Amino acid sequence: MKRTAFFISDGTGITAESLGRSLLAQFSGVEINMLTKPYIDTLEKAQALAKIIESTAAHDGQQPIIIDTIVDQQIRDEIRKAPGFKVDIFSTFLEPLEQELGTRSSYSVGRTHSIGSDDVYMDRIHSVHFALDNDDGARTHQYDKADIILVGVSRCGKTPTSLYLALQFGIRAANYPLTEDDLDEDGTLKLPKALVPHRRKLFGLTIDARRLSAIRNERRPNSRYSSMDQCLQEVEQAEALYRILHIPFIDTTRFSIEEISTRMIAEAGLARRFSPR
Amino acid sequence: MKRTAFFISDGTGITAESLGRSLLAQFSGVEINMLTKPYIDTLEKAQALAKIIESTAAHDGQQPIIIDTIVDQQIRDEIRKAPGFKVDIFSTFLEPLEQELGTRSSYSVGRTHSIGSDDVYMDRIHSVHFALDNDDGARTHQYDKADIILVGVSRCGKTPTSLYLALQFGIRAANYPLTEDDLDEDGTLKLPKALVPHRRKLFGLTIDARRLSAIRNERRPNSRYSSMDQCLQEVEQAEALYRILHIPFIDTTRFSIEEISTRMIAEAGLARRFSPR
Repeated sequence: MKRTAFFISDGTGITAESLGRSLLAQFSGVEINMLTKPYIDTLEKAQALAKIIESTAAHDGQQPIIIDTIVDQQIRDEIRKAPGFKVDIFSTFLEPLEQELGTRSSYSVGRTHSIGSDDVYMDRIHSVHFALDNDDGARTHQYDKADIILVGVSRCGKTPTSLYLALQFGIRAANYPLTEDDLDEDGTLKLPKALVPHRRKLFGLTIDARRLSAIRNERRPNSRYSSMDQCLQEVEQAEALYRILHIPFIDTTRFSIEEISTRMIAEAGLARRFSPR
Repeated sequence: MKRTAFFISDGTGITAESLGRSLLAQFSGVEINMLTKPYIDTLEKAQALAKIIESTAAHDGQQPIIIDTIVDQQIRDEIRKAPGFKVDIFSTFLEPLEQELGTRSSYSVGRTHSIGSDDVYMDRIHSVHFALDNDDGARTHQYDKADIILVGVSRCGKTPTSLYLALQFGIRAANYPLTEDDLDEDGTLKLPKALVPHRRKLFGLTIDARRLSAIRNERRPNSRYSSMDQCLQEVEQAEALYRILHIPFIDTTRFSIEEISTRMIAEAGLARRFSPR
C-alpha cells in the first residue's frame, strides 16, 4: 500500500524535508512517495496545493502525511483543509519554546535558509573558490591558508568533499592526488614534497577498489588507470601511507559526503566559518 | 541574558541543527549560542556530553535548550539526565506516525544522511564533475547533456550555485560567463553563439553592482574589472539581455545559494536526480 508524504514550506523546504525524511526513514517497511513543495507563501499557492493533496488522497486511497514548516497561520489553514496526517512541527514546539524563552516568536516566513550576513556570503564564495583553485594539487602555495588538505588516489571523492566543506561550512579545503609518481624505489608511496610542511593538515580518503574501478571506468573505459589491479594497488599503497604517517582517513565507500565532512570536522577539530544555512 | 542550545545527534547532526535553527530563528530577540554535537553514538560520549551540558547550565545560569534526533533510548536517557529544556522531535512524532502507518518504527541510528545506494553516489559524483568540467564556459560541447545552463557576469555566483545544484540534487548545471566580448556593435550584449541552441536551458543570475565590485576587488584590487563603473555596466547589460530574451533570472544579492537553487528547480521545473541526503 503506497503512501504519499508532502514536505511543505514557505521557504526552501530544506528543513521540512530534512526532518520529514529523518522521521520516515524509521519506517523502512512502508513505501512512501515523498514530495517537497517549497515557496508556498501565498493563499493562492496553498489553495492549489490543497487540491493536489486532496486528489493524491483520493488516488492513494489513504490520507497523505503532511509535514510543514509554514509560519503564516492563514496559509497553514488552507493546507489544513486538505485531508492528511499532519505532523505539526512549528505549533508543537514554538509555544513551549515561547514559554521557556519568555518571549513571543516572530512567526516570520522562511528565515532559516535565507541569505544571512554579507560576511557569511563572502566566506562561502571564498571557500568555494579556494577549493577550486587548490583542486587536484593544481596549486600548492596556498596550503598555508588551507584549513585542511585532503589526500587520496584519483577519483576517490576528494573534490566533492572539499566542495561540500566549502559550501556548507566555509572550510577552506585543498586537495592533492596521490599518484604513482609518488612511489619510492621500493614501490611504496612517499609523502609528496609539497605536503611535507603541512603534514598536520592532511586528511586521507580511501575507497573500495571495486567502486574506484567502476568510477574510473566511466572516465577512461578499459584503461590501465581503471583496471582492478591498478585500483587495488593504489588504494593499498595510499592506506599504507596513512598508517605509517598516522594520517587520519575515512573510507568514502561506506559514508556519504555529509558523513565524511562532519566526521572530518569532528576528528580534525576544524572550526566552521559559518553554520549550514 | 545569553542562552545555549545543543543540537545533538547520533549521525551527522544535520537534521537536528536544521530544525533547531528553524525554530530558534523565530526568536530573533534572544541571543542563543548554538552548538552542534554529532556522532553521539555511545553511552560514553553521551555521558561526556551530559557533563558539558551541566556545566553550560551552571555557566549560563539558565538551562540549555536541547534538540536531539538520537534514536537509541539508552543514549537518550544519558542526555536527559542533564538539565535542559528538551525539544523531543522523535518521541513526539514517531509514536503518532507508528499508529498512522500501522507499523513499528525501526529506531535505527543515523539513517538520514547515510550513504544510500550506489546509484545516488555515482549521480552525485558525476554531477559535480559535470559542473566542474563545464564551469565558466570552459567546454560547451556537453551542453546537450546539461539540465540547466547558468549565465551571468564574472563572479555573480554561477560556480557556487552550479556546485550546490550538483551536490544536493544531482542536477547537471553548466555555467557560461557573459563578458564584454559578447557586446554587439551598438554596445548591447548579445547571446553568445555557444548558447543559442540551448536557449531554453538558460537561467540568468544577477547581482548588486556594489557587491560585485567588492567581490571582484578581492580578486583584482583597483582594476578596471572591479571598478564600480564596469560592474554597473555589465550588470545592466546582462539584465537587459535576460529581459529581451525572456531568460528567467534571480538576484544573488537577495538570496542564499539554497534559495537560488530551490527557486531555480521550481521555476525551471527541473527534476532532481536524488533528494538531499
